[in-house]
Amino acid sequence: MRAVLSLCVGAGLAALLAAWRRRRSVREVLFFPSPPCCTEELLAEAEAEGCDGRPAPCPCPLPRSDCAFTRLLRRLLSARRSLELCLFAFSSPELGRAVSVLHRRGVRIRVVTDSQYMALRGSQIGVLRLLGIQVRHNQDVAFMHHKFAIVDKKMLITGSLNWTMEAIHSNRENVVIVEDAEIVRPYLDEFERIWEEYDPGNYTFFPKEND
Amino acid sequence: MRAVLSLCVGAGLAALLAAWRRRRSVREVLFFPSPPCCTEELLAEAEAEGCDGRPAPCPCPLPRSDCAFTRLLRRLLSARRSLELCLFAFSSPELGRAVSVLHRRGVRIRVVTDSQYMALRGSQIGVLRLLGIQVRHNQDVAFMHHKFAIVDKKMLITGSLNWTMEAIHSNRENVVIVEDAEIVRPYLDEFERIWEEYDPGNYTFFPKEND
Repeated sequence: MRAVLSLCVGAGLAALLAAWRRRRSVREVLFFPSPPCCTEELLAEAEAEGCDGRPAPCPCPLPRSDCAFTRLLRRLLSARRSLELCLFAFSSPELGRAVSVLHRRGVRIRVVTDSQYMALRGSQIGVLRLLGIQVRHNQDVAFMHHKFAIVDKKMLITGSLNWTMEAIHSNRENVVIVEDAEIVRPYLDEFERIWEEYDPGNYTFFPKEND
Repeated sequence: MRAVLSLCVGAGLAALLAAWRRRRSVREVLFFPSPPCCTEELLAEAEAEGCDGRPAPCPCPLPRSDCAFTRLLRRLLSARRSLELCLFAFSSPELGRAVSVLHRRGVRIRVVTDSQYMALRGSQIGVLRLLGIQVRHNQDVAFMHHKFAIVDKKMLITGSLNWTMEAIHSNRENVVIVEDAEIVRPYLDEFERIWEEYDPGNYTFFPKEND
């Protein structure tokens, strides 16, 4: 009887611990267009991390309250070790600035994108490459249409949102952010599959010498 | 001591029950392009539901094993009461057929879409309207860029995938399917917000008489 009771208590405590862990793990949904709000203070603060003194307050008149866009930036800026980006279109200067901050902080960043959209006006892909961030892209006409990010191998940011100004400030868009290994793991595997497939060593843009 | 033990056992059992419920709830990730596989048998079977006899086997040579596309169709066809569709582009004939099946089965279907993309060649929106399914759309130039569906108010299907043949058979795309009230509820609320906002009574395409 005592053994059964101990087992029951043990299993119960384990389940309670799992439920507590689950409650602490991130599950957030964001909708866009994001209402206007100041992103400058958040980004300037992230840039000044580790430096003496704090940046001057931003003089812009935009609200300081949280909006979908600052929430997205905060989740991204929480990266400490790694960031995988798998993005069809990336032209938001604020998101580009956040990724630059993480790169300077020493976070290992890898980017996969679409060859047609990376060349569009305002694309951040060239900026990231100039900083030394590794970028790979498809070489066929089908779109690399994913729009997801994985923070520190454990938090997934995914949805309909391309990382462009139009998407953030004009379109109806959704983003779901989860820390759930059963969901994050397949996305990590998909990233690694694409990363290998888009290895520049496999590009066939130019015919080989013997072709 | 006995009271503490009872409390502990009770809380433990409740947590175990919650964990069991969670394990049973859907969490699935699909990646596209989907490998080729037969969708005809699945759709013909759904169409024949409630009729005498079974449909003849499909003679096509495509594999019968599950693929991302049939998994998506199956999740959709599981609807019994309601289906909310919030789709930027919808031109897949198979997905259109699945929605028609659900409509005939008596599932309450509401569709929100994008005014520019609903007019493209192959769009299923006109087909659904002819069946009597309610469709509403935006009237501004910003995109209604969502790509999500909610089955029976409890299962969310969302991701980067537009419901087009290119997306399903050519592009790199992702879909996440979850039964998690904390995630599904905000999407339901977003759908209702958009549904009200896109009420045809609010359209201003044509100037009012006194304008």
